[in-house]
Amino acid sequence: MKKILLVGAHGTIGRAVAQNLGLRHQIISAGRSGGDHRVDLTSETSVAALFDRVGRVDAIVSTTGGLHLGPFADMAAVQFDVGLQAKLLGQVRLALIGQHFLNNGGSITLTASVDSIEPIRHGSNASVVGAALEAFAMAAAVELPRGLRINVVSPALLTESVERFGELFPGSETVSAERVARAYQRSVEGAQTGRAYRVM
Amino acid sequence: MKKILLVGAHGTIGRAVAQNLGLRHQIISAGRSGGDHRVDLTSETSVAALFDRVGRVDAIVSTTGGLHLGPFADMAAVQFDVGLQAKLLGQVRLALIGQHFLNNGGSITLTASVDSIEPIRHGSNASVVGAALEAFAMAAAVELPRGLRINVVSPALLTESVERFGELFPGSETVSAERVARAYQRSVEGAQTGRAYRVM
Repeated sequence: MKKILLVGAHGTIGRAVAQNLGLRHQIISAGRSGGDHRVDLTSETSVAALFDRVGRVDAIVSTTGGLHLGPFADMAAVQFDVGLQAKLLGQVRLALIGQHFLNNGGSITLTASVDSIEPIRHGSNASVVGAALEAFAMAAAVELPRGLRINVVSPALLTESVERFGELFPGSETVSAERVARAYQRSVEGAQTGRAYRVM
Repeated sequence: MKKILLVGAHGTIGRAVAQNLGLRHQIISAGRSGGDHRVDLTSETSVAALFDRVGRVDAIVSTTGGLHLGPFADMAAVQFDVGLQAKLLGQVRLALIGQHFLNNGGSITLTASVDSIEPIRHGSNASVVGAALEAFAMAAAVELPRGLRINVVSPALLTESVERFGELFPGSETVSAERVARAYQRSVEGAQTGRAYRVM
């Protein structure tokens, strides 16, 4: 049984991950507005305070991250920075601080998206952030000591999100949150590192 | 003959690009501290002012961008943000504003790096920024109107930079700036869009 910090436990993916991993592990949940602990990944002091309270863990899982969706022709850099600060740098911050609170052989699993390789209209910020997170896992993996591992999960459009976002993904097959959760299980319980698990 | 705005014309790659493209085109150079025009890509007003002065162009080429190089174990999010703001969002800003100043059929060419797929020690920020820029070209290309194109060039370690950075790239083959410049020529004078031209 592992001690797992799950940030974003109340989102659609987070709930499915908690259900999957919770069967076999101790889950400590955190989020902006719910869970065992409150945390704002855009704040250095908030993330540091989270680990001060939670202490050492065997796995860190994040299913968080805001993005900007909108037409490229109207986009401003300040909008583009939304995804860079929230979903990208927020999760990077969690990994950079969290690495020092992982037990030997522990793992970090972050959330990207298959927009990294499948661009859609209005999705340039999502593509960039997804690809950036996939590269982050690849690059961090070559430097992590003590058998620490890092991976990302890159889901396609969730079946549960078709009503909200389906129009942006014409003809795309969707994936259930339950199936996406298994990729987090692979990352946490498996042996690989530096991987992007694309669920599509 | 095209009218080409070249930002970063005084760097090692920029000089080689200016030499290549300058044989057949009109080059308007810009940079932080030199060139026909001064520009700071981290400033919205500075980039807008640049295009107000330069007007419409047939191609925008950027060979700019600062990064953070350093060990993953010691890295802080604020250091990681250096590459996100300078090399990534700086060039994204140039593209977002510049798209409106491109003549029909015009092109944007930005600079990434092969760290996007070849991670090195101390290079997590470079890998993320490189992959992010490659995804930016892929994603922006599906939305650009009027035959506008966008690509990035992802060079390996420059032969000219071996003395400064060679220790970080054990055994890597290097590429000359002159050879890298041909990838910019392919992007500006060719027909492809959404491409990452990896020169390695």
